[in-house]
Amino acid sequence: MKDRSQQQGITQALAAFAVQQDAQDIPQEVMAVMRLSLLDWIVVGCAGRDEPVAASVRALARDEGGAAQAHALGMAQRVPARMAALVNGTVSHALDYDDTHFAHIGHPSVAVVPAALAMAERIGASGPEFQAAALIGCEASVRVGLWLGRGHYQAGFHQTATAGAFGAGLAAGRLLRLDPAQMADVLGLLATRASGLKSQFGSMAKPFNAGIAAANGVEAALLVHYGLQPRRDALEVAQGFGVTHHGAADHAALDGLGTDWHFDRVSHKFHACCHGLHAALEALKSLGAVRPDAVARIRVSTHPRWLSVCNITSPTTGLQSKFSYAQVMAMHLLGHDTARLDSYTDALCADTGVAALRQRVEVTGDDTIPETASRVTLVLDDGSDCRAEHDLAHALPLEQRRAKVLAKAESLLGEDRVACLSALIGDGAAPGLIGAALI
Amino acid sequence: MKDRSQQQGITQALAAFAVQQDAQDIPQEVMAVMRLSLLDWIVVGCAGRDEPVAASVRALARDEGGAAQAHALGMAQRVPARMAALVNGTVSHALDYDDTHFAHIGHPSVAVVPAALAMAERIGASGPEFQAAALIGCEASVRVGLWLGRGHYQAGFHQTATAGAFGAGLAAGRLLRLDPAQMADVLGLLATRASGLKSQFGSMAKPFNAGIAAANGVEAALLVHYGLQPRRDALEVAQGFGVTHHGAADHAALDGLGTDWHFDRVSHKFHACCHGLHAALEALKSLGAVRPDAVARIRVSTHPRWLSVCNITSPTTGLQSKFSYAQVMAMHLLGHDTARLDSYTDALCADTGVAALRQRVEVTGDDTIPETASRVTLVLDDGSDCRAEHDLAHALPLEQRRAKVLAKAESLLGEDRVACLSALIGDGAAPGLIGAALI
Repeated sequence: MKDRSQQQGITQALAAFAVQQDAQDIPQEVMAVMRLSLLDWIVVGCAGRDEPVAASVRALARDEGGAAQAHALGMAQRVPARMAALVNGTVSHALDYDDTHFAHIGHPSVAVVPAALAMAERIGASGPEFQAAALIGCEASVRVGLWLGRGHYQAGFHQTATAGAFGAGLAAGRLLRLDPAQMADVLGLLATRASGLKSQFGSMAKPFNAGIAAANGVEAALLVHYGLQPRRDALEVAQGFGVTHHGAADHAALDGLGTDWHFDRVSHKFHACCHGLHAALEALKSLGAVRPDAVARIRVSTHPRWLSVCNITSPTTGLQSKFSYAQVMAMHLLGHDTARLDSYTDALCADTGVAALRQRVEVTGDDTIPETASRVTLVLDDGSDCRAEHDLAHALPLEQRRAKVLAKAESLLGEDRVACLSALIGDGAAPGLIGAALI
Repeated sequence: MKDRSQQQGITQALAAFAVQQDAQDIPQEVMAVMRLSLLDWIVVGCAGRDEPVAASVRALARDEGGAAQAHALGMAQRVPARMAALVNGTVSHALDYDDTHFAHIGHPSVAVVPAALAMAERIGASGPEFQAAALIGCEASVRVGLWLGRGHYQAGFHQTATAGAFGAGLAAGRLLRLDPAQMADVLGLLATRASGLKSQFGSMAKPFNAGIAAANGVEAALLVHYGLQPRRDALEVAQGFGVTHHGAADHAALDGLGTDWHFDRVSHKFHACCHGLHAALEALKSLGAVRPDAVARIRVSTHPRWLSVCNITSPTTGLQSKFSYAQVMAMHLLGHDTARLDSYTDALCADTGVAALRQRVEVTGDDTIPETASRVTLVLDDGSDCRAEHDLAHALPLEQRRAKVLAKAESLLGEDRVACLSALIGDGAAPGLIGAALI
C-alpha cells in the first residue's frame, strides 16, 4: 500500500503530521534523543549568553518591551513569545556549538526549540506537550530540508533558517492547537516569510538566521490563529517557496512520516570547533593516549569539501583555530580539551609545542570518504603506525551519547547546574521552569 | 567622467546615497510627488482599516503590546516601531489601492513609508526629516528593484516585499542617523531577512508582504544600531541575495543616483481595481461622455501579459469585477464610479444593463503596446468610431495629478478629513501628528 504521505502534497502531509501525531506513539528512544537535544540547547544557549550578537538582540527586545509571555536568554523580564523566539534562536546559535542534522545539513534545535518553548510558555502548555511539539517541529524541519534538497543549500540558502522556519511554525501551531487546515496556512504563510543566506557564515547574522526562523514560526502560527489566510500551498505551488528557492521538491523526503523518524540521527557537537573537524578528532581520540613527542606524522583524510572550510594550516587567532585540522589535532595530543570554549585562544596558536606538532599534520582530500567521516593515521618515530576512522553519521548508542552530552554540559555550566537542568527535562517540567533556567 | 555609483557595489552606493543625500538638493517637483504619495498612502490605509487582514495583524500587535513608540492604523494605543511598520504596511496594502512604480513593478509607498513613519515617530524626527527619508527609501527601493531586474519578478518574487525591504531599511537607518558603514550593514542584514512571493497574490498574505518589508527595514536598522554586524555586501556577493533570488545585478540601475530621480514617475491608482485595467479606463474616459445604448462595440487592445491577469469576461463577485476589462468598461459607460470601493459589488455584476454592455467588450492582446498602456476603440451603432490610447508611464502634470489624488482621497475619506491631512503634510507636520491620523 502506498504511504499516505505519498498521495498528498508536502503541505497537507506535514500539516496532518503536526496535528495528528499522537505523542504516545513516539518511540521512547527518539524522545530520549530529543531530551538530550533540549539539554544541549539550553547549555549552549546559556554558554553563549554574553556573545556580542546576544547583546544586540536583547537590546531590541528591551527597546520594544511588551507582554511578559516567555523567557529569553539573559533577560530577567519575560518578553512576547515572538521576541523570545528571536532572542533564544539567535543566542543559542551564537557559539555554533548546537546540534546538527547531516541529512539536510541544518541545525534543527536552534530554529525549532525556541519557537516551541516560547509558545509553550505563552499558553501554559505542559512539559510533555512542549517536548512533543519540539520533536515534531524538528522532525518536520529535517523533512522540509530533505524535500528542498542539497541544491537549495548549494545555491546559497541556510537550511537552518529556511527549513527551520517551517518546523518552528508547526511546533508553535501544534501548541496553539491549530487544526490541519490552519496548520497548512501556517506553512503557506511561512513560504512568503522564510529566509536566510549562507553568505552570512562567519558573521553575527549566521546565528541571527536561527533567530528569524524561530520568530517566523511563532509569528505565522499566531497570525493564522488570528485569522490571516495566505495561499495555503505556497510551499509547493508553481512559483512557490520550493521552486523560487532552488528546491528539488523531492517527495521521497516524506517517506515514513510519523512512523520512521529522522531526528534521532541528529549529531551533537562535542568539540567547540567547526563540525568538519569532529570526525577527525573522534578518530584520533579512539586511538587512545599517545606520547606527543613520539609522533612523527599525523595524516588526516577527509572529504574534499572540508578543505576549503576548516583547513587553516597555521592559525593565529582563537577563531581561526576552530577551523584548523592541524591545530585541533595538536591540541588533543597535548591534552588541551577541545570541548572547552576557552581552549581556543590566540596564545595557544602561538605556543611553540602546539606549533611544532601542528607542522606534523598532513591533511588530504579523499572523495571516497563520506562528508561526515574522517580517517586519521598516526605514524610514530619508530616507523610504526596506527589508524582509525570515524563517521558522525553513525549515531552513538544512547547511553554513550547521553554521557558525552552530560560531560560537555558539565564542562560548560558545571555539575550542579546540569544536574538541575537534567532533572527538569527528565521530569517533563513545565515550560515556564525551563524558561526560567535561561535568565 | 564615470558616475560615482559606477565604481561602487550597489551596497556601498545605496548606503552613501541614503546617508549623504542632502534634503535641500531634492528637486521640488520630486518632493511634491512624494507628498502626494504620503497623502494617498494615509488615505488608502485608513480606507482599508476594516479589511480582515487588518484585524489579524492588529490582534498580533495587541497580543504583544510593548513600548508606545508609533501609531498603527486603527489602534488607539501606540506600539513598538517594528510592529507599527508591520501593521501599517499590511493594512495600507489591503485594498491594493496604493501607488505602483512600473519601472520595477512594485508598490514603493506601502513598504517604505510605514518604516519611515514608525522610526520618525520613535525618535521624534521632524516632518521634513521624515518626508526626505521616505522619499530616499522609496527611490532606493525602485533602484534595488531595477538592479534585481524583471527576471526576479518573473521567477516569483514580489518586488514590493523584496526590493521594498531594502528601501525601508535605508529610510529607517537615515532617521536613526546611521553612518555609511552601518547603513551598508543594514543592507547586508536585510539580504538574509527580505522575503516575499507573488504566489500569495489573491490572498491576505499579499498585503502582509508589504508589512514584512516595512518591519524588516525597521528591525534591521535597529539591530545594526544595537551593534549587530552581518556580512556587509550580502546583497551582491557570490551566493548573496541577488544571485540566490534570480537577480540580474544590473548595475545600470544605479545610474544618476542622487541626481536623477525615478520615484516621481510613480503611478497613483485612481480606480479601485487591478492596475492592469487603469490605462484602458483612462483611455475610455478621455473619449468623453457617450450614450451607452449607442455603443455597439468596445474594443480594448492591451499588452498580452494582462490577459491572464485581469480579463475575467463574466465576473460574478465584487472581487472578480476588479479583474475584468469588460466589467469596468461597462461600469464607466453606465456612470458607476470606478474610483469608489463600494462600486465593485456582486449585485452590479448581476445587473442586466451592465451584463448587456459587458458582452459588447472585446479584449485583444497586442505586444506592440507597452505594459503600461491600452488602446480603446468605441464603435457606435451608426458605424462611426472613436479611439484613444493612454499610457500610465507618462506621468501626469503635477497639478493634474494633485487634483486626481485629492478627488480620490475625498471620495474615500470625505473633504474635511482630506483638507486636514493635506494641511498636515503640506506644513511638514511632526510625524507624531501624521501617525495620530491613522488611529
